[in-house]
Amino acid sequence: MKAGKGKVGNSSDVEEKEMEGGARIRWLITHRDGAPNFSMRLISIPEGKNTPFHSHNYEHEIFIIEGKVNATIDDRVEEAVEGDFVFIPPNAYHGMVAEKDTRIICIVPVDVARQMLGN
Amino acid sequence: MKAGKGKVGNSSDVEEKEMEGGARIRWLITHRDGAPNFSMRLISIPEGKNTPFHSHNYEHEIFIIEGKVNATIDDRVEEAVEGDFVFIPPNAYHGMVAEKDTRIICIVPVDVARQMLGN
Repeated sequence: MKAGKGKVGNSSDVEEKEMEGGARIRWLITHRDGAPNFSMRLISIPEGKNTPFHSHNYEHEIFIIEGKVNATIDDRVEEAVEGDFVFIPPNAYHGMVAEKDTRIICIVPVDVARQMLGN
Repeated sequence: MKAGKGKVGNSSDVEEKEMEGGARIRWLITHRDGAPNFSMRLISIPEGKNTPFHSHNYEHEIFIIEGKVNATIDDRVEEAVEGDFVFIPPNAYHGMVAEKDTRIICIVPVDVARQMLGN
């Protein structure tokens, strides 16, 4: 796909989808915009809800915009708050439970967007 | 490189480096953490300062955490504020001037981290 002309958008204009665990996801930048390598998602986790607990063969790079979570990475749980970043390596079992309403940026390889959203 | 055990860190603990134009960059997650595909940076742009104006053969995916910028993408300038995202495609001429003190997340391929930071 051609990389296109680039884009400025507001996240609240992007469709929000429910995730397993009660978190909600907006796919901000994907292959549909011509992104060649990675995809940016904004995930909201209401207090008491969580992102899916699972593992997969690709990494996450996460930034906590606001809120507070308990992040499971394999056999440990670490607290992460506003201004923190989280690296989930490939194949690590992981998930996040929100202690407060939380918003995070979470990056995945663009092939994951293609698989999950279709072309 | 082995992907390692994963990591939670606070951005204020990461060394801040000056960029051309007066912006300041923190490389939050890189190949040094075992990231296989992409690298997460936090960039602060004080009011009136800017990120470098240039082009390169890789993309940026940007999220505006706070502030307001005028973003040049090739031959146009668009305003971007808190909650907005920006996709800079490969080879587009680009740069951002801050209208207010601004913080952004900016993702690049991990090879860029390796080239700019060394192994």
